[in-house]
Amino acid sequence: MIPLVTLLLDTDFYKFTMGQVVFHRYPNIPVRYAFKNRTRSIHLADFIKERELRSQLDYARTLRFERSELDYLRGIDNYGARMFEEDYLEFLKNFRLPPYDLAIANGEYILEFPGAWQDAIYWEVPALKIVNALYSQARMRALSRFEQECVFATGKIRLKEKQTVLRARPDVKFSDFGTRRCFSGAWQDYALVSMAQEVPRNLLGTSNVKLAKKHNLMPMGTSAHEMPMILSGMFDDVSENPMRLAQRTALEDWWDEYGQGLSIYLPDTWGTPFGLSLMTAKEANEWKGFRQDSGDPIQIGEIGIKFYESCGVDPTQKLIVFSDGLDINQMCRVVDHFKGRIRCTFGWGTNLTNDLGFEPISIVIKPIEANGHPVVKLSDNIAKATGDPVEIERAKVFSGYAGGFCEQPKY
Amino acid sequence: MIPLVTLLLDTDFYKFTMGQVVFHRYPNIPVRYAFKNRTRSIHLADFIKERELRSQLDYARTLRFERSELDYLRGIDNYGARMFEEDYLEFLKNFRLPPYDLAIANGEYILEFPGAWQDAIYWEVPALKIVNALYSQARMRALSRFEQECVFATGKIRLKEKQTVLRARPDVKFSDFGTRRCFSGAWQDYALVSMAQEVPRNLLGTSNVKLAKKHNLMPMGTSAHEMPMILSGMFDDVSENPMRLAQRTALEDWWDEYGQGLSIYLPDTWGTPFGLSLMTAKEANEWKGFRQDSGDPIQIGEIGIKFYESCGVDPTQKLIVFSDGLDINQMCRVVDHFKGRIRCTFGWGTNLTNDLGFEPISIVIKPIEANGHPVVKLSDNIAKATGDPVEIERAKVFSGYAGGFCEQPKY
Repeated sequence: MIPLVTLLLDTDFYKFTMGQVVFHRYPNIPVRYAFKNRTRSIHLADFIKERELRSQLDYARTLRFERSELDYLRGIDNYGARMFEEDYLEFLKNFRLPPYDLAIANGEYILEFPGAWQDAIYWEVPALKIVNALYSQARMRALSRFEQECVFATGKIRLKEKQTVLRARPDVKFSDFGTRRCFSGAWQDYALVSMAQEVPRNLLGTSNVKLAKKHNLMPMGTSAHEMPMILSGMFDDVSENPMRLAQRTALEDWWDEYGQGLSIYLPDTWGTPFGLSLMTAKEANEWKGFRQDSGDPIQIGEIGIKFYESCGVDPTQKLIVFSDGLDINQMCRVVDHFKGRIRCTFGWGTNLTNDLGFEPISIVIKPIEANGHPVVKLSDNIAKATGDPVEIERAKVFSGYAGGFCEQPKY
Repeated sequence: MIPLVTLLLDTDFYKFTMGQVVFHRYPNIPVRYAFKNRTRSIHLADFIKERELRSQLDYARTLRFERSELDYLRGIDNYGARMFEEDYLEFLKNFRLPPYDLAIANGEYILEFPGAWQDAIYWEVPALKIVNALYSQARMRALSRFEQECVFATGKIRLKEKQTVLRARPDVKFSDFGTRRCFSGAWQDYALVSMAQEVPRNLLGTSNVKLAKKHNLMPMGTSAHEMPMILSGMFDDVSENPMRLAQRTALEDWWDEYGQGLSIYLPDTWGTPFGLSLMTAKEANEWKGFRQDSGDPIQIGEIGIKFYESCGVDPTQKLIVFSDGLDINQMCRVVDHFKGRIRCTFGWGTNLTNDLGFEPISIVIKPIEANGHPVVKLSDNIAKATGDPVEIERAKVFSGYAGGFCEQPKY
């Protein structure tokens, strides 16, 4: 067995920025994350043997943070001086990934991660990376050696095509957000290095902390849906509208922990209109911007501009980080559309690190339960919703979710 | 300096089949071969340093046949038992490449190989291979490391595209004739192995003896224009029409040496109509077929069919080896056109071993002088003629060269 994840730092930066907030405020909320394969045509148990999946997950559980990894985290001050505090680093020093639950039903893996939030939070990225890499390996095993080489050849040619476009578009700035969706760890590394060398003006950084450390790149990322989702489970006992309270708390906790440095808001957990409606004009003015992770990027961007204008804020001083599965042409069109009206950057995932000719699978790991309550997200595209259908309907009521505007095709 | 040609067996099989005829019959005719770059837009001295070219040619001159190479040649009986005789193998045992003449004029190399025919004959393939590989290296040096990798990626994808077509066309049979035009020796090896593994039904063999030995493939090849060309220089003193005598002698020598095993005629040295007119009905019946190396393949094939019919020979029992720069689509069209009328195979050169995105250069090494007389070839496409213009006009008269039909575009 060749381990696929060999370092705990081989994860997304937002796991640490969120991890510290969780460690400081909600360490022991009992949570449960669940793996979900959104690609219905592919039954993963047909491709990945349970034995090999278990071996990889078990190996990941043996990992400890290396000293140089913690030293690197300690030294990061790109978003504010000494952003990771000693108590949190001390916690990481002793950290191990907690146990997981694995079963197979109807050809699909049921893979869940129960535990205290401060521990279970770290499974998402390595588990997704392992499943993707095992799936890639299974697809590759079906090919001849030459065909395998042609897969990488295709990957290189597609990277080069992207770079040809990017070189002519220094205004299109992106970060690698592809850790969880990469074809393999080695391929993500390769793709990222080629971007850093060939189009340094376009590349802002990477969400992968291991690769940021290794290649002297800016670690990128802020927060994810799990923050308000898990808080909504926590508040289910104490609030009539737990989503409202959860989203507000997530906003306030974040600002308290990091101030302006990391102030990119993620408003779409229960629909962007609901998320933005909970941001005050003062916050709209103070926060750097927001991340668009579902729905039509042009439409959401326009909503953002209107929102800032309604708060008396100049949108040209604000930033949208688009991170919902864009390709290079879509990125160029978004930049062109918003030119001079609001700033745009991109978190580039699957299409950056898993574009080698195979159709990548779409897999996610999301919290499904917190503090004994089911939790859900809706997104601006109801196809990206996660959680129990009944709970999804309940959340729609709490958030006044319209959703209709988001279900159009992107372009 | 990393040597580019490291084995004397890294050459085309026809050098040995011709080499033995020369050794047995005309060992000491003084000849002179000359390098010619047909790609006028590229001045090779701008890309290849004289020092590096000299180093490579000098290194090639240090080579001796290895024992296992001679053992392999001795054992080849694909075209007849013990086709290479002991006296010839003894000669090869002591063989070294003879001195060369190198100069630069107007940004182009003047590279000539004078000597006894039995020695100078072996320079053609290694010298062309060295020039091509040095040119590739020069082009690669101008690229970033990632761009260099994309060159090979492009090469792999194009091999795969060819294989996709070939897999559906088991009736298209080819041999690798790409040694002299390959991007590099390593790439020829790679391309050939991928064809052997992926489309074994289509691949007949390779002209490269080193690779035939290494990869257990059939060594392919018969004779080249130099046979009648040099003989024409020899007969210039004794015949009123040295081309007629040379072509007849080449035919007879070949049959005497190898019989039916290697009986593929090359009729286009001074135009295919002239060449075929010198073949008797008996020979047309006995010889396996002929090689088409210039002119429109359909047109030349039709001329061949008419020729066989005029000799009372059933063309469906005869073979044409098409070897004039075809690509995969052209091959399929030729096969379709002649289906059930005459057998077709292909010698696939540049487009097989040098299709990586760069425009390959078109270079040749041909005899320009033999026995103190200038020698020329015309081909069925006057653009492929080599030699002094005055001599070319003289050859046209001797051969009754019409040539017009050959100057049409191929498709």
